Amino acid sequence: MKFTINRLNFINELNNVLRAVSSKTTIPILTGLKLVVTNDELVLTGSNADISIESTVTQQMGAFELVIDEPGEIVLPARFFSEIVKKLPDEMVTLEVNQGFQAVIKSGAAEFTVNGQDANNFPHLPEVGADRQITVAADVLREVVDQTRIAVSKQESRPILTGIHLTLVDGKLTAVATDSHRLAQRSVAVPNAPAQPYDVVIPGNSLTELSRMITDVSDGIVMSFADSQVLFTFGHTNFYSRLLEGNYPETDRLIPTTSETKLTLAADQFLAAIERASLLSHQSRNNVVKLTVKPAAGVAMISGNSSDVGNVEEAIAASAMTGNELEISFNPDYMRDALKSFGTMQVVMAFTSALRPFTLVPADDETNFIQLITPVRTY
Amino acid sequence: MKFTINRLNFINELNNVLRAVSSKTTIPILTGLKLVVTNDELVLTGSNADISIESTVTQQMGAFELVIDEPGEIVLPARFFSEIVKKLPDEMVTLEVNQGFQAVIKSGAAEFTVNGQDANNFPHLPEVGADRQITVAADVLREVVDQTRIAVSKQESRPILTGIHLTLVDGKLTAVATDSHRLAQRSVAVPNAPAQPYDVVIPGNSLTELSRMITDVSDGIVMSFADSQVLFTFGHTNFYSRLLEGNYPETDRLIPTTSETKLTLAADQFLAAIERASLLSHQSRNNVVKLTVKPAAGVAMISGNSSDVGNVEEAIAASAMTGNELEISFNPDYMRDALKSFGTMQVVMAFTSALRPFTLVPADDETNFIQLITPVRTY
Repeated sequence: MKFTINRLNFINELNNVLRAVSSKTTIPILTGLKLVVTNDELVLTGSNADISIESTVTQQMGAFELVIDEPGEIVLPARFFSEIVKKLPDEMVTLEVNQGFQAVIKSGAAEFTVNGQDANNFPHLPEVGADRQITVAADVLREVVDQTRIAVSKQESRPILTGIHLTLVDGKLTAVATDSHRLAQRSVAVPNAPAQPYDVVIPGNSLTELSRMITDVSDGIVMSFADSQVLFTFGHTNFYSRLLEGNYPETDRLIPTTSETKLTLAADQFLAAIERASLLSHQSRNNVVKLTVKPAAGVAMISGNSSDVGNVEEAIAASAMTGNELEISFNPDYMRDALKSFGTMQVVMAFTSALRPFTLVPADDETNFIQLITPVRTY
Repeated sequence: MKFTINRLNFINELNNVLRAVSSKTTIPILTGLKLVVTNDELVLTGSNADISIESTVTQQMGAFELVIDEPGEIVLPARFFSEIVKKLPDEMVTLEVNQGFQAVIKSGAAEFTVNGQDANNFPHLPEVGADRQITVAADVLREVVDQTRIAVSKQESRPILTGIHLTLVDGKLTAVATDSHRLAQRSVAVPNAPAQPYDVVIPGNSLTELSRMITDVSDGIVMSFADSQVLFTFGHTNFYSRLLEGNYPETDRLIPTTSETKLTLAADQFLAAIERASLLSHQSRNNVVKLTVKPAAGVAMISGNSSDVGNVEEAIAASAMTGNELEISFNPDYMRDALKSFGTMQVVMAFTSALRPFTLVPADDETNFIQLITPVRTY
């Protein structure tokens, strides 16, 4: 096995595949990166329990300046190998495996010999056919993921809640996540969607990695489904994730359909006030901020109190408020995460009572994007 | 007590004083920041076991827009208070203490009440007179500190070695640090220096903080000495450090005066090669890199070897090499630190034998700046 490649472009591919490589793994070979060289392409693969990433560089991709002298395959220690490539002196790097599993890496005057492993011992990637596919624009998929992953549960006690529930019904893709204290739901129309409905739960961590990886992708992402796997294909990269097994809880009934108090405000301005108030609540044993709304008097106010440290209050600039007077307390970290997902939008907050979950929706689209937060009982 | 101040400029002063405030301290009031307001100035003080920093803002300093309504003093929780000031919404901030030790902080619509403490319980700063003073340009002092602090010991087993030994003799200021594995020494001429000699040991951590703090200072730094304290004065800031007690070991005799092998090379290029080789040595139990010099053949080479991981070798581009053949092994982290202190200079490395300390000096000034490294015995 021997090939030469442009070092900086090779580093980009290594960084992508490394997203799937964990340094903590119970299967030692998964700390490795598989390199497979055929007559005209180089395939890099990294894998962990949840995701596998496969990147294919061909001799036709000019920027890589890939020259293949001899096919072959090997598994090299992923992080160590990529650190070496990053620090090499020359524009090009040559990798050669002559006998056994020792790779010689040359660039300029530097020469590393690195002990590798037999590529036959690397787990095979799942097989995912092309018969069940959806194509979604990369920026749309990223937005859907970024607006819902905040509500994914970090607790393993109910594994199904560590995923994002994705459904496709009548051309509408809906993502839902909840950790049972809050819920995020986002729907988008998918052009040319298949008539067949889809219903899967994808680990939140997988989608978070995917979202980071596709920031520069302008094409559509092809999602292909198998029984226990989903494959996202974009550019020359395949991104596999396992699916979570089990039924995702029914979430529609959690979202209130009526309200007694409404408050409309700029998400970013309210976010700044929440971040100030949480400076104090974070010093306190119970991390709680109180919102007081008096629509008749035109007053909205947040406040926090910690007997040890002090207290805080701030009047909130609302563009509209209607309905009953209300005092409600909540975890400001949940509110911060929710507000961040709206950017600089005007947001409508709708409340039924101090002990019932409340919702945040964009003022100009109240149905396709909802953040829901359960309040905290303070008495 | 009541004053109003420009928030962004106040944040700069808070950040400076916070350098002296440790979150881990056995004296609770030292987690606080002392604010003293007189008729025309605001004095901020932070302190820990080693250093104290005092910053004075007067009404004459226009950028601060300081308006004093009522003198007074208080101690506030340092990090919490500065986090609040950083997040406040308005251009200005007002701080008011009416009764007891509760401070009310107002900016725009936000109002915090923060529990403070009696300023009388804050330790007094040491008294340092003006009778023993040296003035050194800020950039010179910074260079001297940055080039020597790398060799300061991190072990508390010999406390005196956690300091930098500063001497002033015949108008020449010399700084020396050693952790007994390596040594750094830098001398500079001080214009208008007093005839009286000085000999002090200042904690390395104090000088590191000072060096970071004076990056933007263009004036001279006035150093004033008392028996157990040194005071650095610049701009409107006083920086106090305790001195280390005890005699610093005699270091002159450690520096070899003859050599058998010399190698001249560009510090930055050699640094890059050392950083590559240390990728491998860091994976190995004994973190060692070997340098081989064969002046007659014009060959210089570094290499490393780890039976588990692999090996590395790289030919080094030297601009000159003279003397005997040599193989010598050293800790590449020490070499990296030493090389960084030379920037892009040409450096002369001088060796006597494989088991004797060797030196690095600038090619164009072999006497005023020396890095010394003790090799590692590998057999």
